[in-house]
Amino acid sequence: MTFLQQLQAAQTAHQSMLCVGLDPEPSRFPGALKGNANKIYDFCAAIVDATADAVIAFKPQIAYFAAHRAEGQLERLMEHMRRVAPLVPIILDAKRGDIGSTAEQYAIEAFERYGADAVTLSPFMGFDSVQPYLKYHDKGAFLLCRTSNKGGDDLQNQRLASVEGQPLLYEHVAKLAQGPWNLNGQLGLVVGATYPNEIERVRKLAPTLPLLIPGVGAQGGDALATVRAGWRSDAPIVVNSSRAILYASSGDDFAQAARAEALRTRALLHNAIAA
Amino acid sequence: MTFLQQLQAAQTAHQSMLCVGLDPEPSRFPGALKGNANKIYDFCAAIVDATADAVIAFKPQIAYFAAHRAEGQLERLMEHMRRVAPLVPIILDAKRGDIGSTAEQYAIEAFERYGADAVTLSPFMGFDSVQPYLKYHDKGAFLLCRTSNKGGDDLQNQRLASVEGQPLLYEHVAKLAQGPWNLNGQLGLVVGATYPNEIERVRKLAPTLPLLIPGVGAQGGDALATVRAGWRSDAPIVVNSSRAILYASSGDDFAQAARAEALRTRALLHNAIAA
Repeated sequence: MTFLQQLQAAQTAHQSMLCVGLDPEPSRFPGALKGNANKIYDFCAAIVDATADAVIAFKPQIAYFAAHRAEGQLERLMEHMRRVAPLVPIILDAKRGDIGSTAEQYAIEAFERYGADAVTLSPFMGFDSVQPYLKYHDKGAFLLCRTSNKGGDDLQNQRLASVEGQPLLYEHVAKLAQGPWNLNGQLGLVVGATYPNEIERVRKLAPTLPLLIPGVGAQGGDALATVRAGWRSDAPIVVNSSRAILYASSGDDFAQAARAEALRTRALLHNAIAA
Repeated sequence: MTFLQQLQAAQTAHQSMLCVGLDPEPSRFPGALKGNANKIYDFCAAIVDATADAVIAFKPQIAYFAAHRAEGQLERLMEHMRRVAPLVPIILDAKRGDIGSTAEQYAIEAFERYGADAVTLSPFMGFDSVQPYLKYHDKGAFLLCRTSNKGGDDLQNQRLASVEGQPLLYEHVAKLAQGPWNLNGQLGLVVGATYPNEIERVRKLAPTLPLLIPGVGAQGGDALATVRAGWRSDAPIVVNSSRAILYASSGDDFAQAARAEALRTRALLHNAIAA
């Protein structure tokens, strides 16, 4: 099964385009877990158990594990997710970007060590920094395209004089990912939810790619506008929410609260299709 | 001491602009170490011991450790380098690039967990993806600018219509790093050695920044042209060589062979100043 097929299967089975981002911050952990970096696995596993039937994907962010020497806990978490939610693809959010031989090592890290189904990548170093990941034919890769942070403008929103049609840099990335870079249909794009008109633009340039859309929830993107701009029946959108779900409650009911918030967000997104 | 001062001190003490890149590949390890991922620390420590008095910096590439679950060995190696070569700054080559809260985690990883003196970063997500690293005032950050791989052209060499003077994207990055992004003088740039005229161009736009220049050695850049284009008496260049030094011999004399190759490369670079 390809990564795209995995996404479509999870989308159908769970009627969901919600991705739960696993960005564990011990200082924000609830109740007895608070401040304890040895409980990253426990916290994340509880979130996974509470939301697994409501999501299209999980997205662990590797920085939050690396800052706490918690690679071992991430390995255990990946195993746990595959066991309790075998249908749900796992996107390792690592935003790697390096040349061939080093990229090969990062691909081993993501796909062999952690067993991720897809990874996020930076396109800044060009096609040969993406290619090593594509050798894993059943795996996917989401390229940074248009990010919703303030600094996202600094490079991504510059207009290119040297490319036909004078696209913005992020539009050029979208075209490359839809076209010449997408050797085996494994690529997707990361597009922030803050500017729905940019999601619309990316969707026009990349009609068949899955879009990973962070920024709904804590970052404040508009869920309705996001879905309207990005959703296509044949090209999944993966709408990420992290903090709003992880830290929905600071009490011992955090897992139930996370589930409630996940279900609420799933419904919000789903209803936007009809609206 | 700032990172720039550290570089200048090592440059003067060791009369060197050579950086040894630590990209350990167990399959290429010499003699009895060959294929043994538990010997990553031993291999790298032997290289460090053999070359410490001949370098301006060491540059471990984190992907080679992460692919082998060797974060613990990297931690030990960092400690070893600080102990046997306290004068030599350590650049953690990680090419991170993510937004504020996640970037903060990566900064903790690089500067607090591993104790690196500088890190390599991707500028693709803009200034607020760089800023969290600058809060560590004694640390440095090298931004990817113009990389020497084939795909480096794909984005970095595009001309920007929307910026005054229509620079290429990498020229725009150089200007940002020399100017508005360089709040406390902590930034440097990564520029490949393959095209010396591009180093010259970057040097013109960023006259005072340290340049990290990979691609001499195995990647085949021209050392003389590189030094002529980039070296300034008041702005260090850090010329990286990895494989040509690490794997100079496949026998038990690998450390001596690495030292000989390091000394040879140091001299080659040094002589280019006079030439």
